[in-house]
Amino acid sequence: MKSMAVHRFEPERFHNVFGGHEAVLSLSPGDLLITRTVDAHGVDSQMRQVAVRPNPLTGPFSVRGAEPGDTLVVQLEKILPNREPGWTTNAIDPALVDPDFARNVPEKQYVEWRVNKKSKSVFLTDAGWSLGRLELPLDPMLGCVGVAPKDGQMLSSMTSAEHGGNMDWCGCRQGVSLYLPVFNSGALLYIGDGHAVQSDGEIGGNGVEISMDVELSVDLIKGRETGWPRAEDDRWLYTLGNARPFFQALQHATTEMIRWLAQDYNLGFSEASILMSQSIRYEVANIFDPAYTAVCKLEKATLDGVLNS
Amino acid sequence: MKSMAVHRFEPERFHNVFGGHEAVLSLSPGDLLITRTVDAHGVDSQMRQVAVRPNPLTGPFSVRGAEPGDTLVVQLEKILPNREPGWTTNAIDPALVDPDFARNVPEKQYVEWRVNKKSKSVFLTDAGWSLGRLELPLDPMLGCVGVAPKDGQMLSSMTSAEHGGNMDWCGCRQGVSLYLPVFNSGALLYIGDGHAVQSDGEIGGNGVEISMDVELSVDLIKGRETGWPRAEDDRWLYTLGNARPFFQALQHATTEMIRWLAQDYNLGFSEASILMSQSIRYEVANIFDPAYTAVCKLEKATLDGVLNS
Amino acid sequence: MKSMAVHRFEPERFHNVFGGHEAVLSLSPGDLLITRTVDAHGVDSQMRQVAVRPNPLTGPFSVRGAEPGDTLVVQLEKILPNREPGWTTNAIDPALVDPDFARNVPEKQYVEWRVNKKSKSVFLTDAGWSLGRLELPLDPMLGCVGVAPKDGQMLSSMTSAEHGGNMDWCGCRQGVSLYLPVFNSGALLYIGDGHAVQSDGEIGGNGVEISMDVELSVDLIKGRETGWPRAEDDRWLYTLGNARPFFQALQHATTEMIRWLAQDYNLGFSEASILMSQSIRYEVANIFDPAYTAVCKLEKATLDGVLNS
Amino acid sequence: MKSMAVHRFEPERFHNVFGGHEAVLSLSPGDLLITRTVDAHGVDSQMRQVAVRPNPLTGPFSVRGAEPGDTLVVQLEKILPNREPGWTTNAIDPALVDPDFARNVPEKQYVEWRVNKKSKSVFLTDAGWSLGRLELPLDPMLGCVGVAPKDGQMLSSMTSAEHGGNMDWCGCRQGVSLYLPVFNSGALLYIGDGHAVQSDGEIGGNGVEISMDVELSVDLIKGRETGWPRAEDDRWLYTLGNARPFFQALQHATTEMIRWLAQDYNLGFSEASILMSQSIRYEVANIFDPAYTAVCKLEKATLDGVLNS
Repeated sequence: MKSMAVHRFEPERFHNVFGGHEAVLSLSPGDLLITRTVDAHGVDSQMRQVAVRPNPLTGPFSVRGAEPGDTLVVQLEKILPNREPGWTTNAIDPALVDPDFARNVPEKQYVEWRVNKKSKSVFLTDAGWSLGRLELPLDPMLGCVGVAPKDGQMLSSMTSAEHGGNMDWCGCRQGVSLYLPVFNSGALLYIGDGHAVQSDGEIGGNGVEISMDVELSVDLIKGRETGWPRAEDDRWLYTLGNARPFFQALQHATTEMIRWLAQDYNLGFSEASILMSQSIRYEVANIFDPAYTAVCKLEKATLDGVLNS
Repeated sequence: MKSMAVHRFEPERFHNVFGGHEAVLSLSPGDLLITRTVDAHGVDSQMRQVAVRPNPLTGPFSVRGAEPGDTLVVQLEKILPNREPGWTTNAIDPALVDPDFARNVPEKQYVEWRVNKKSKSVFLTDAGWSLGRLELPLDPMLGCVGVAPKDGQMLSSMTSAEHGGNMDWCGCRQGVSLYLPVFNSGALLYIGDGHAVQSDGEIGGNGVEISMDVELSVDLIKGRETGWPRAEDDRWLYTLGNARPFFQALQHATTEMIRWLAQDYNLGFSEASILMSQSIRYEVANIFDPAYTAVCKLEKATLDGVLNS
Repeated sequence: MKSMAVHRFEPERFHNVFGGHEAVLSLSPGDLLITRTVDAHGVDSQMRQVAVRPNPLTGPFSVRGAEPGDTLVVQLEKILPNREPGWTTNAIDPALVDPDFARNVPEKQYVEWRVNKKSKSVFLTDAGWSLGRLELPLDPMLGCVGVAPKDGQMLSSMTSAEHGGNMDWCGCRQGVSLYLPVFNSGALLYIGDGHAVQSDGEIGGNGVEISMDVELSVDLIKGRETGWPRAEDDRWLYTLGNARPFFQALQHATTEMIRWLAQDYNLGFSEASILMSQSIRYEVANIFDPAYTAVCKLEKATLDGVLNS
Repeated sequence: MKSMAVHRFEPERFHNVFGGHEAVLSLSPGDLLITRTVDAHGVDSQMRQVAVRPNPLTGPFSVRGAEPGDTLVVQLEKILPNREPGWTTNAIDPALVDPDFARNVPEKQYVEWRVNKKSKSVFLTDAGWSLGRLELPLDPMLGCVGVAPKDGQMLSSMTSAEHGGNMDWCGCRQGVSLYLPVFNSGALLYIGDGHAVQSDGEIGGNGVEISMDVELSVDLIKGRETGWPRAEDDRWLYTLGNARPFFQALQHATTEMIRWLAQDYNLGFSEASILMSQSIRYEVANIFDPAYTAVCKLEKATLDGVLNS
């Protein structure tokens, strides 16, 4: 029987790329990590500037026994803002509107928000806008979760690929388990870029940017090939594709779901097609970063009749 | 006070393009229409082949007083299969998987399903597949809803544009009101292509194809400019963009939501951006048809604090 | 032996869609047609406004014996401006620059040019710009050449598809033979939208817009399947794909060249690949219209060694 | 007056990423470098396997005085195969044909070619194909030219970005000067991936892959901002955009040409638009690599009338 160790890690140095660094801590499969992330501009829970832009990352954490070809499991046990003030900006990205409408996009300004953990809400505190009392449900997430990339690359914390990275998926929240392909010994996990809440698409280029307390446990699936990040919660299976154009991200996510249904549920292409064509849902995770992120999801209940047959 | 007339229309001739036809019936704003649609291959409730492919359309219905520059409201009061057997095919479209995975796509075969209105479910009856008892919740929708297109065009019932058309959005269900731009006198409404259930994206090229009983009421918003189809139900506001690539469909839908928030809620670009960037959701309606369909949606509750300010 | 008839046709009515009209004149294979086109705004050689926007089309001309599944050959014998003044505008389309650069695009203004047939040049006559004596070689082309579309559609003269249409390819010049798929009895050929000169991509949304004298002969290849427009001149074979995104237009053009090499040169997929991968060239015909146009071209000389083997 | 030094460098170690390495040699502006590249699989002039895939790079070479914000000039004085045998494969990439045509793409096989420097040709020597005596003009180029990337990244030699990289542009040939943005002190230039000939688009995933003798000189333009790689030869100015989708690469290249015309020719947006919209040409450099490459080009002669005004 595995005994779970609990590690507390207070980050002092941060990275702006995935890959190329020595591990700051070594975890064993099953271990729990309690740590923190700073916001996208490097500001921490005490409003101190402790790191430089963009998206300073906590980590990397190595996982004992992880080798290329394995899958790293990252279970997100807790993601919670560790301060009250957050910020966004005031302009949907000009690439995301009709090109002849883009000249209407205003100059970028910062916008202030505040988290109320008691009421579980995030509300606009910036008086400069005619938005009354805009209040949204608190829904914390991590914009960046990933491992060291393949092919010896060091990739900016602004972008994403097979290794995960800056996927800015609002579904990357407490209660979700991520499955990431391992490309390097130890996997080397990085996290960062917390948002108190975020729309689909991250269309303004940010969620409510904030520093976070994070608790996660890690595990390994030895010899399991994962092409693109996968995730799971109580209700859904998720596959994530990262690419431009968005359609290619959709292709990756769709293909990865077909592969997963083949690996774990023994479905052929036709069977996966019949099932998926009437039941899957997509999410537009981000359409702002250098690589966009598409999510394909399948409700687990759909598989009940199939598996009991 | 308006008095609502009820019209029953049994279609005998069907069209495969939007535009270019005389109205089969004239409705007044507020009227209710009770009619039927055949399935995508032209088969009706009695399993008779009464029309030719693709997507034979019922209509067009003219609306008195509708002129270019107005908006047509179509309230979907009822969409219900009027027979039990439905069909799909067995292959996700090769364009929707990674190109080097596309050679795995099997030859197209038809797949049989059956609707059970009592249990409100759709289940696979085709024994040729290892899918056990695959059963999905009944969720009927219309793949085709649209008016005569702009610029004197006649556009295939396979595609979509500003006029609506073959949008294959699984959200086009009972309880939804559609808002369509009017390009021709009388608007000229067509409907067709019912699905008992469908995934996001219509990734296999079909939902569970079936004929439908349809009830809808029409209304007009005189002088209201609508750029792209909009919709509304109890919970959400929706805007729909139809285009290739999918990203352009996302641009249209996003831009149309910004316009809607300006028209009806008096929000400037910055205000709409601040609101939307933390709250909107997207749907991938279809990524199979010649024009893809993206949906941008905003929960009405989000606007409460804003409007009460 | 075929005897060639010469037809002179002076257009009086013009169309803004491809499809849905009675032929204005019937030609036999081998016949020569001498006619005229007005400019994109409907202005003729005498600077009279004789038709309405957009892109008024001369035709349609039917070709005796043309049936669906045949290929129509259109040999462009002469395309020559029949007046001196032409016009463009002053702004690259905002969709064609980086989205965050799009706010620099100025408001649209018209710009005057003049054709000098003697010096075979087109020069800027508009004094409002700091461009000195900008003079370009005269290189007349037709933006619109196409037949009635498939599936009973009527498609705007702003767009293009398998039937040709508004392809805005600067290679559609004198000396070129076009091969167009026939979708309707008589094929029904339309032409229009002449440019005295144009860049690749039609990036400003226009060439130097002008009315033209046109001479063309028609022919038929019975039973020849053509998927997308093809063309040929002394030096090159061309295939044209029309679609959004541009990448899809490239796919269509590339696929059509593979098909052509199979049909006429008996090359398998591998052989076509080996040949094309080291020798083909692409042109970016238009990236402005609703459907973009990509051209794949192969130098005929490349085939010499292959065919003499 | 500058005195030019000549450096001979025989590479022994090769890199598979751009960035992150110490310089192997330091050059001064004006110096000439004589060196070699191995082929895409790491095979040298003597057919020895001396490096590992993919695209092993020679370098990096630092340039004295190069700092972020400068532009590095690389004048390609000589690119010549230093062996006779080259190779390609037999299959256009499945992503580059219509998706429903992709199942026709054969399994990949290697194909043998040979360079004849005397006749300046490249010919197919592989007897396994029905292609007779396929012979193409020798037109050597480098697939990879780039500097260390921005933001401290290390990017695979399979891809490209603002730093250049694996652009696979057949115009990257002898006689061309490249202008690359400098992101790191010393610039750090890498080269590799020679092709004896290549189509537009690199549609088979390779040119005729071969090792090269390369001579190039370097220079600096201090304080010159370059957004994307530029190039120049006797006849043309070129700008190169690297991105997916291809349309975004076109946007980058088009925008960079507008910037260049502003920097060096003092043209405003309208003036650049008027000029470019009637005269620029595009090239489809590569549509195979993770980032595609588009080229926008302007004939220098077009500027004569403008500059003499």
